[in-house]
Amino acid sequence: MNAKLNIVPFVSVENMMKLVLTIGIERFIVELAAYIEEDFRRWELFDKTSRIASHSTDGVIELMPTSDGQLYGFKYVNGHPKNTRDGRQTVTAFGVLADVGNGYPKLLSEMTILTALRTAATSAVAAKYLAPVNAKSMAIIGNGAQSEFQAIAFKALLGVNSLRLYDIDPDASIRCAKNLAKFGFAIEICGSAQEAVEGAEIITTVTADKRSATILTDNMVGSGVHINAVGGDCPGKTELHKDILLRSSIFVEYPPQTRIEGESQQLSADHPLVELWQVMTGKAEGRTSAKQITLFDSVGFATEDFSALRYVRDQLQRTGLYDELDLLADPDEPRDLFGMLLRAEKNVGIIPN
Amino acid sequence: MNAKLNIVPFVSVENMMKLVLTIGIERFIVELAAYIEEDFRRWELFDKTSRIASHSTDGVIELMPTSDGQLYGFKYVNGHPKNTRDGRQTVTAFGVLADVGNGYPKLLSEMTILTALRTAATSAVAAKYLAPVNAKSMAIIGNGAQSEFQAIAFKALLGVNSLRLYDIDPDASIRCAKNLAKFGFAIEICGSAQEAVEGAEIITTVTADKRSATILTDNMVGSGVHINAVGGDCPGKTELHKDILLRSSIFVEYPPQTRIEGESQQLSADHPLVELWQVMTGKAEGRTSAKQITLFDSVGFATEDFSALRYVRDQLQRTGLYDELDLLADPDEPRDLFGMLLRAEKNVGIIPN
Repeated sequence: MNAKLNIVPFVSVENMMKLVLTIGIERFIVELAAYIEEDFRRWELFDKTSRIASHSTDGVIELMPTSDGQLYGFKYVNGHPKNTRDGRQTVTAFGVLADVGNGYPKLLSEMTILTALRTAATSAVAAKYLAPVNAKSMAIIGNGAQSEFQAIAFKALLGVNSLRLYDIDPDASIRCAKNLAKFGFAIEICGSAQEAVEGAEIITTVTADKRSATILTDNMVGSGVHINAVGGDCPGKTELHKDILLRSSIFVEYPPQTRIEGESQQLSADHPLVELWQVMTGKAEGRTSAKQITLFDSVGFATEDFSALRYVRDQLQRTGLYDELDLLADPDEPRDLFGMLLRAEKNVGIIPN
Repeated sequence: MNAKLNIVPFVSVENMMKLVLTIGIERFIVELAAYIEEDFRRWELFDKTSRIASHSTDGVIELMPTSDGQLYGFKYVNGHPKNTRDGRQTVTAFGVLADVGNGYPKLLSEMTILTALRTAATSAVAAKYLAPVNAKSMAIIGNGAQSEFQAIAFKALLGVNSLRLYDIDPDASIRCAKNLAKFGFAIEICGSAQEAVEGAEIITTVTADKRSATILTDNMVGSGVHINAVGGDCPGKTELHKDILLRSSIFVEYPPQTRIEGESQQLSADHPLVELWQVMTGKAEGRTSAKQITLFDSVGFATEDFSALRYVRDQLQRTGLYDELDLLADPDEPRDLFGMLLRAEKNVGIIPN
């Protein structure tokens, strides 16, 4: 009997914050991006499926499973835009990594913070292949919970050092700028989305409303930019005018999911979408000219969470930043689950009944 | 700011055992069965989907989500028959219950023990509607981890008091009999499946091999019995000879899933299957004659786990048998996830890097 078979390492929110800060946010994102890119490059190995969504009036709850044949991972994630009204997060998440060989979970982790980090890291990895060479300035439209992570990822991976912020709530832009103060950006807070995109080589849209909005209209987008469209990520939730899409080369994670959830839901089912993994592995071209508009229609795919869980797991032994969770029944004799229950009787204290 | 928004109640294996023993196994199963039956009766309310399975050489990992519009639940469960060789369980599981309105998890619970309890409770609920009137004797073929739970459920809900046990491993039968010693059954250990079914009014098959086996052949099954077929629960894993199915009235949980996973995978896609919820609500007939063979082709459906999680949640406040898990990020200002991370810096100790 292995006394630890019942235990699953658990990374709480507190330990995730300690982990990120111990490693350093920028280094964490750079290292995480390497795991994400590594998994995109072995894309064909993965068991891929669109996320399983349960929609309701106020939001959605999703499960995002995948496997590379050795490890299995899934994320639970919700999206409820009204949550901020009563002090809750729009998006919360947690995830599990498990051993395909025996089905036992190996890690349970908070993923609210980790999702923001992996989304930003994925955006920056895509931009490495798609953005104009030496792009240094980025507009961020939507300055909510994910905006700072995006900014730092683009700085760490591409050297972006100039930010143009816009949010319908000016306080959000001010807070974003304040949070980023010590990271060495030149930051301009703008009065409109139009103003924010002026001169920006990269445009990141990351708003939260669950509806078809037009954050960017066609006239706002000049030739040669890279658009990092993060906020359009479920049916009925888009941020870009369709005409922008028609002028762009569109790069995506997993087409069957993106056609349902991404900006590309506005397009016909046969509109060409380039798979990001193919660009990374040289099977498809990325940016081919300085005038081309490239668009990363990001919706977030299960492999990115898988990469993130793998990365976190690989930090545990060195840092010790986890708790031990008594999650799995481990009878002294494997087939004797009932006997284990009976023998636990001596441990039961007096509880009001 | 609500200081507890980050917390999700967690029921560990230890607390689940205490909960079951505090309530009493029989009472726990009876109360759980009432929740399961309640949810079957409001079947049409549920968002139903076949489980999402990830198959590998040695087993399967599955996610089983469902929702009644108010609550969302899912279970993670694996099935790896070879696990017992290195001291692990064939099946382990955990589950989550969440609030559909805001997507926040309300409960994380071990479900290895809970799954055995809910499977047994579901079998007994089905048998209440399908077994011969006043059936008192049951054969159990396969005396592994789930067998005692099945026995106790049938005693608690139907008054079954005579058991005929058979397992290819005689030690399993001996252990099962020993574990059940204080529960008031007359128990006979049999030398073959054939011997076990002689005179039994109910036949429970609950073996674990992941292959098409023939635990019951046609000549072994006499008229009038109720077959509770638990072990056949994934593609390629069946226990009954097809001829038995052709002589039986077959009752199932969710036909799209059962036709893939259950004994019914041996039948044509249009073979009639009766939905259990329709029997419970009077929309379909259950047992109609004393000579009829009824067969509950049990595969386990997400609503049963949902019911089990609901039941466990309803016991927490009174018993206090849970831990508080720091699973959800709860920034002082909801949109300021990054700021929360920055402000955590003061709490980070010295960790070898």
